[in-house]
Amino acid sequence: MSHKPTIVGSALPNIPWEDRPTGCSDVLWRSARNPIIPRNLIPSSNSIFNSAVVPFEGHFAGVFRCDDKRRNMQLHAGRSDDGIHWTLKNERLEFVQTGDEPFEFIYGYDPRVCWIEDRYYVTWCNAYGGWPTIGVGYTYDFETFYQTENAFLPYNRNGVLLPRKVGGRYAMLSRPSDRGHTPFGDIYYSESPDMVYWGRHREVMRAAGGWQSTKIGAGPTPIETTEGWLLIYHGVLTSCNGFVYSAGAALLDLDQPWKVIRRTAPYLISPQMLYECVGDVPNVVFPCAALSDAATGRIALYYGAADTVTCLAFCQVDELIDFVKSNSM
Amino acid sequence: MSHKPTIVGSALPNIPWEDRPTGCSDVLWRSARNPIIPRNLIPSSNSIFNSAVVPFEGHFAGVFRCDDKRRNMQLHAGRSDDGIHWTLKNERLEFVQTGDEPFEFIYGYDPRVCWIEDRYYVTWCNAYGGWPTIGVGYTYDFETFYQTENAFLPYNRNGVLLPRKVGGRYAMLSRPSDRGHTPFGDIYYSESPDMVYWGRHREVMRAAGGWQSTKIGAGPTPIETTEGWLLIYHGVLTSCNGFVYSAGAALLDLDQPWKVIRRTAPYLISPQMLYECVGDVPNVVFPCAALSDAATGRIALYYGAADTVTCLAFCQVDELIDFVKSNSM
Amino acid sequence: MSHKPTIVGSALPNIPWEDRPTGCSDVLWRSARNPIIPRNLIPSSNSIFNSAVVPFEGHFAGVFRCDDKRRNMQLHAGRSDDGIHWTLKNERLEFVQTGDEPFEFIYGYDPRVCWIEDRYYVTWCNAYGGWPTIGVGYTYDFETFYQTENAFLPYNRNGVLLPRKVGGRYAMLSRPSDRGHTPFGDIYYSESPDMVYWGRHREVMRAAGGWQSTKIGAGPTPIETTEGWLLIYHGVLTSCNGFVYSAGAALLDLDQPWKVIRRTAPYLISPQMLYECVGDVPNVVFPCAALSDAATGRIALYYGAADTVTCLAFCQVDELIDFVKSNSM
Amino acid sequence: MSHKPTIVGSALPNIPWEDRPTGCSDVLWRSARNPIIPRNLIPSSNSIFNSAVVPFEGHFAGVFRCDDKRRNMQLHAGRSDDGIHWTLKNERLEFVQTGDEPFEFIYGYDPRVCWIEDRYYVTWCNAYGGWPTIGVGYTYDFETFYQTENAFLPYNRNGVLLPRKVGGRYAMLSRPSDRGHTPFGDIYYSESPDMVYWGRHREVMRAAGGWQSTKIGAGPTPIETTEGWLLIYHGVLTSCNGFVYSAGAALLDLDQPWKVIRRTAPYLISPQMLYECVGDVPNVVFPCAALSDAATGRIALYYGAADTVTCLAFCQVDELIDFVKSNSM
Amino acid sequence: MSHKPTIVGSALPNIPWEDRPTGCSDVLWRSARNPIIPRNLIPSSNSIFNSAVVPFEGHFAGVFRCDDKRRNMQLHAGRSDDGIHWTLKNERLEFVQTGDEPFEFIYGYDPRVCWIEDRYYVTWCNAYGGWPTIGVGYTYDFETFYQTENAFLPYNRNGVLLPRKVGGRYAMLSRPSDRGHTPFGDIYYSESPDMVYWGRHREVMRAAGGWQSTKIGAGPTPIETTEGWLLIYHGVLTSCNGFVYSAGAALLDLDQPWKVIRRTAPYLISPQMLYECVGDVPNVVFPCAALSDAATGRIALYYGAADTVTCLAFCQVDELIDFVKSNSM
Amino acid sequence: MSHKPTIVGSALPNIPWEDRPTGCSDVLWRSARNPIIPRNLIPSSNSIFNSAVVPFEGHFAGVFRCDDKRRNMQLHAGRSDDGIHWTLKNERLEFVQTGDEPFEFIYGYDPRVCWIEDRYYVTWCNAYGGWPTIGVGYTYDFETFYQTENAFLPYNRNGVLLPRKVGGRYAMLSRPSDRGHTPFGDIYYSESPDMVYWGRHREVMRAAGGWQSTKIGAGPTPIETTEGWLLIYHGVLTSCNGFVYSAGAALLDLDQPWKVIRRTAPYLISPQMLYECVGDVPNVVFPCAALSDAATGRIALYYGAADTVTCLAFCQVDELIDFVKSNSM
Repeated sequence: MSHKPTIVGSALPNIPWEDRPTGCSDVLWRSARNPIIPRNLIPSSNSIFNSAVVPFEGHFAGVFRCDDKRRNMQLHAGRSDDGIHWTLKNERLEFVQTGDEPFEFIYGYDPRVCWIEDRYYVTWCNAYGGWPTIGVGYTYDFETFYQTENAFLPYNRNGVLLPRKVGGRYAMLSRPSDRGHTPFGDIYYSESPDMVYWGRHREVMRAAGGWQSTKIGAGPTPIETTEGWLLIYHGVLTSCNGFVYSAGAALLDLDQPWKVIRRTAPYLISPQMLYECVGDVPNVVFPCAALSDAATGRIALYYGAADTVTCLAFCQVDELIDFVKSNSM
Repeated sequence: MSHKPTIVGSALPNIPWEDRPTGCSDVLWRSARNPIIPRNLIPSSNSIFNSAVVPFEGHFAGVFRCDDKRRNMQLHAGRSDDGIHWTLKNERLEFVQTGDEPFEFIYGYDPRVCWIEDRYYVTWCNAYGGWPTIGVGYTYDFETFYQTENAFLPYNRNGVLLPRKVGGRYAMLSRPSDRGHTPFGDIYYSESPDMVYWGRHREVMRAAGGWQSTKIGAGPTPIETTEGWLLIYHGVLTSCNGFVYSAGAALLDLDQPWKVIRRTAPYLISPQMLYECVGDVPNVVFPCAALSDAATGRIALYYGAADTVTCLAFCQVDELIDFVKSNSM
Repeated sequence: MSHKPTIVGSALPNIPWEDRPTGCSDVLWRSARNPIIPRNLIPSSNSIFNSAVVPFEGHFAGVFRCDDKRRNMQLHAGRSDDGIHWTLKNERLEFVQTGDEPFEFIYGYDPRVCWIEDRYYVTWCNAYGGWPTIGVGYTYDFETFYQTENAFLPYNRNGVLLPRKVGGRYAMLSRPSDRGHTPFGDIYYSESPDMVYWGRHREVMRAAGGWQSTKIGAGPTPIETTEGWLLIYHGVLTSCNGFVYSAGAALLDLDQPWKVIRRTAPYLISPQMLYECVGDVPNVVFPCAALSDAATGRIALYYGAADTVTCLAFCQVDELIDFVKSNSM
Repeated sequence: MSHKPTIVGSALPNIPWEDRPTGCSDVLWRSARNPIIPRNLIPSSNSIFNSAVVPFEGHFAGVFRCDDKRRNMQLHAGRSDDGIHWTLKNERLEFVQTGDEPFEFIYGYDPRVCWIEDRYYVTWCNAYGGWPTIGVGYTYDFETFYQTENAFLPYNRNGVLLPRKVGGRYAMLSRPSDRGHTPFGDIYYSESPDMVYWGRHREVMRAAGGWQSTKIGAGPTPIETTEGWLLIYHGVLTSCNGFVYSAGAALLDLDQPWKVIRRTAPYLISPQMLYECVGDVPNVVFPCAALSDAATGRIALYYGAADTVTCLAFCQVDELIDFVKSNSM
Repeated sequence: MSHKPTIVGSALPNIPWEDRPTGCSDVLWRSARNPIIPRNLIPSSNSIFNSAVVPFEGHFAGVFRCDDKRRNMQLHAGRSDDGIHWTLKNERLEFVQTGDEPFEFIYGYDPRVCWIEDRYYVTWCNAYGGWPTIGVGYTYDFETFYQTENAFLPYNRNGVLLPRKVGGRYAMLSRPSDRGHTPFGDIYYSESPDMVYWGRHREVMRAAGGWQSTKIGAGPTPIETTEGWLLIYHGVLTSCNGFVYSAGAALLDLDQPWKVIRRTAPYLISPQMLYECVGDVPNVVFPCAALSDAATGRIALYYGAADTVTCLAFCQVDELIDFVKSNSM
Repeated sequence: MSHKPTIVGSALPNIPWEDRPTGCSDVLWRSARNPIIPRNLIPSSNSIFNSAVVPFEGHFAGVFRCDDKRRNMQLHAGRSDDGIHWTLKNERLEFVQTGDEPFEFIYGYDPRVCWIEDRYYVTWCNAYGGWPTIGVGYTYDFETFYQTENAFLPYNRNGVLLPRKVGGRYAMLSRPSDRGHTPFGDIYYSESPDMVYWGRHREVMRAAGGWQSTKIGAGPTPIETTEGWLLIYHGVLTSCNGFVYSAGAALLDLDQPWKVIRRTAPYLISPQMLYECVGDVPNVVFPCAALSDAATGRIALYYGAADTVTCLAFCQVDELIDFVKSNSM
């Protein structure tokens, strides 16, 4: 299949993939095998969701949020040959401390993994003194993980790195928060010369109407395209019975990623399947990772469902970009 | 079938109907075809529920709440030959403005339709400056809809007209509210000489214990019967996990409709089916319209389920009135 | 003293008055005799504040909010020769019921009095079934008061009549509320052909920044001027220690009073004197009545202080209008 | 089957029982027949759950929480030959008053039944003046029930008696609460010489992390074992969409039951089945009773699911005690 | 002065006393020397208020709430020759533990002192595990204080003993609470055979309208009179700027003290003086102790003002009882 | 007067100063001239408080929080010969933008000024997109002010620079917050190589009991002493009537300023004077600046009172350090 290279990146011929089902006209479609990772894949897990997957050595590796049966939030490393069937380590991921003041691990959740230059960076919601902020670490091999300085002061969640430097500096999206089930949240952009000190903070997008009216947060590592950074993000609506997490997409300026080119008014996906509507937290779809094949424009999106299981959905990059453009706020 | 004419109204021989299932002793029973309208009946819809249906030209017509995929609340007109299979317009209903200060449409939801004298009046929860109040409009043909003055100041919801004038004046039930997911709410009665100016406001019923302890609101257009106005209404209970919407019934005095003759202590229907318990808002049954056949006493009740789909239930008017009388608070 | 007749109205040569103190440059200045009515003027009163005063038979009469020592909110009629020294009836005001469904008096507060055509109308925050809405009554002599229909459905406060019909209809400003210490509130405009049925509701002004960021409400009966309706209103700011009530002014279009010509960005008066900062509710200035002398442009403003006592302030209409124009939002 | 007598008690050869399913490694496993009691077992019931079961005259008897279709919380007595198939009285349980000031029955829920010496004591969440506290009664025959003094002042829930006196005094666990859906709660211990006056109150366990971070409450009557009192208790986690009720276990000192020997860090069971996740209150497992067979160490645990139906789970006492010891906080 | 012995008790000729000021018609009048105890009477004190005073060895002794400059709540013993000028110990009161499980002192506040039979009982709001409940202790000499069992489970405040047994049992009023600034609260009655185990709990009075609409709590030890137990109690109103504490009185049945004979609709005293309106907690009068002279009917009431200082007010028992009777709810 | 140079810094012989009043034993004492700056010093000001003062060219200069009569929060520059009598510019301070993306000024409050190396840095609570974060600017002459990058992402307040680099990097204390009247808050430490990018965030101190139980925040620029960094900070207690702001002190390690050597359990100063208890926000003392004279150890502390006026207090450094050491938590 020939394809104009909208995605600026590598081919990934073994990307997990299912064609759009007959009769489906949605720009994003679910895997027929969902949930691809059940809640109890490993003996200690209560749930496995909101997890980060990357291509690795011809196969796939990832960092997974596994809440254990104490309902403590942990990270676990995992491997897969096909991106569908996963083997997770039963022991939680422990970081080798690299700083002068080692951090105690209290909890970690909602990881993202991002290859930049020479290594896989991991960012996650990391407790510092018990409060959420953006933890930063890296690995070369998904065996040994190193932890560096937290990027920001508490309280912050959904720290997502861009996959290359912008203007010579590392770039991260994040969502400043409060201590609890934060009832607000916008996406900000920050830069760093060295992955330790961060500044030049810029507002990117605010919570807006409808499905994204309570708060929004960056999802997978943004995908570089010829049309801008393709950002899939989650949005939250507050019904009389709590939060509903859906997902949409935006295009950000390649050089000034805090400038939004387009942003979907409708959602791409909202909780509608039983495995998205019923679980530890009903009515949640929460994308954390995407694989993309620059050769064909195929994208495989990993998302957590109902804060319980891990699912997969698919789209084609040009269709998605067209959708963003033609359904912009 | 012969029947004493309890219902003061017309025969509706083609009312959608299913007999009570064998073994069922409930006064109200669900359609076996529920949900009769799926969430995605039209391409733009996220959900279709809390919708208003009336007999029209030998068939049926209605105004439907369709939340679009931005999760914005819209109204759509629709037609049906049998009251079960519906065709909805894909474009949202837009009102022709009749006043000197045209109203901007921000959102509209939970419509009711009521034939009075020469036209079909539509009332709905209409945003004025962003806040909920009772919008009023009318149509002759379900093609062109005209909007007049909002009945009340914000904040109000569940405005339901009586199907004829009372004491020479139009009469409306409504539920004064606040700006959000209002945690209280009683039913009030108001009168108008001209459908523009409203006054002589009277309290009708308050939230009471159990399933109706948090708030109550009028449902379908009340049905005139020889025993009084038959009002089906929703009630809300607040569990530790949010609101639960059920429905009950009351008989109101024909001449002084703010005087309650009887009111059910138990609910008629509460969320128990999967399509009522799982969806955009779990645990909601919300009736908005009823068809009635004066010749046989049959009633077909349309209700929204889980704020996601549209359902149908059935009852017989005399049985229902007996139930209201024998299960009164 | 000659004066161009900015105020459209009558001369009131015996208006209570004190000249602006030397060195004071404020547009509005306080009486040196504040508080002019102490909290315990009558034996039963805990506090006397937020009270309505009008010229009457060459002297002055009014309706006063007197909270009794149960802390129940009552209305009391009063008389004064000079507008400063008041005699209040020790028994609370009881309305003669004129409707077919007499209203039980539960509480009444924050009255306004307004002469229209042939009588003095009284509006106040009147409990209907325990909830606040706008009570309406009238008197010819401040001895006998008649109660008519509440203007609106609950929940509403600060109903203020315009002193003449607009477009042939009575006109009222009000502030839709909720059941408690409402944390929001904007000013709306409604019309009535007969003081019973109200409609054609229009938004006038919203809460805005600073001192008026939480809610706003109309104060005294608006004063008709050649520049528009002069409305003095209160605004509320929420500090970490509660509400702070200040007051500002606006000019409304004479023919379409829901259209704001100008509105002060700064306050005219905020709680700064000990009797405004300390009392049953600290930090409250709440104007409810104004006397004006069309011959000289003098205005005497009555306001409640700390929800405890009644105070007086003064301004000159042209200076005030200039201030509104030159300090507009 | 031979078994060392870990349980200090009687043999119960006809205990309801199912062996652990093949492939299941959980210490507690669900009945394949769940829910064993449907919500509508009796005509008046909306739901039947959180119910108390004991051996009685060679068979089984119990007191059941049946919320009626008003959603009022009632107690009903019931009988069963096998502990699985139950016959409940359609009329709610009414207590014979034994005190000088008869108590009005307003609501009762979450009963426990406990044999001590010569009778079956019933404790439940009993409204006194409308507020929850611990009701106390007893029966000899599950036909006639006598009510004595409430154990404590409001506000209290989950009062659970120990099945024998400790140090010569009756002993009760309870969870002091507030008036609503209490967002906190720890387990306390109290003693009484006579089941009327209670004192020597001691804190037993506090809410802790994860699944038991919001509040905890005692479940079934503690089981006396050679290792201590075996207490199965519920714990609550607050997600962004409300409470999640799971269950764990603890061992308490036999002589000083307020001293915790061990307590599980992970849960034993959390809501994962559709009948636990979907219902009147989603995501609830709430154990209220346990049968135990001292001869074999088998335990049958009754629990309410989703505040809607009654379920059964099984475990073996030694395995459970090992689990508590090896998974202690 | 001759006086019929309304008060059942002893003469106290040296009761602190000031005659009613000329022109004052209030049933209760303030001391001209208020505040009689300043906030900084002892070096460590931030504030001294809500304190308990009794006749002792011909003079006076008491237990005082002294918040230290950490703002920790402590109890201090004190002595006075005249009831006006006090000497407080600079070291906080430490209780000798009498139980088998000594209690750690975390905080103590709002003490009451009550002579029963052979000793002075002290009750106070005592932290157990950090949460408020009713601590109980006693002293013979105001030098050594002994602590016994807390009367109730948390959460409770304002435990006030009756000064003699009722029906052969100790009797205590208290106000069940929650963990924080409780927004509700009624007065309950409990009995004990031995001051250790408490039961036979009865509701006495609920929060009602006006000044006592949010919560109420018993104040000083009730005074036995020929007309019933004379209870002075505090009530709280919630303004938009927080709680306002006033005080009223009630007469309780001598033999069944949970039965209210009369209860004042108006307050006896509300915060009106600067020292009551301004301080660590504005707008608080909180009575905790009363001295009474049976020979003359004089009563001296000690109350905390603004949670900062200690004040004194006076009344005559027959006037007060008349007031209660003629101003009853 | 000879003095061992505890303060590492310059002599400031003209420091404003008053000796400790006779009879006063407090470690910190108020100026007899308080408030030294009235609320209306300049025509536009509603209040002047929480202001930053430094020695400048032999006299004094500062940046002041002046809320204008819209109650908008502004910064104003000012000068004084003696540190007591101030001249403030009537126009608000406007920053020259130095970055590539100029910041709009929305509001600014609670400034601090700190000399480092070659200029006066100004930090303040600066709105970015409407939300609070730490603004950073500098001036050489108090005439022209330059604004650089905000230090952190929202939401943050009380950013206070250390007066020299630590380990070669700029150092700032701050208090992460939420969007409103934040009900929590701890002090954190961050470092920057260049005053643009910040990282290596460390927790310094948490809110603790009593007066500092709700939140804490750094006050004036810490004073370098031979015993460590002397940090005066505010703490907040939540009474039933809102926040109470007091102040205490701590000693931080000179090289690792996130390590606390000592911290006062009692407050140094709490709101007790009328000008601290009554004003726009009752019960606030909020120190923002300190002058120190290394030659004599004298310290003059500027603090805002009641969010309305500016006050002055005095202490001697060795006495203060002794107090911190002997009254440590």
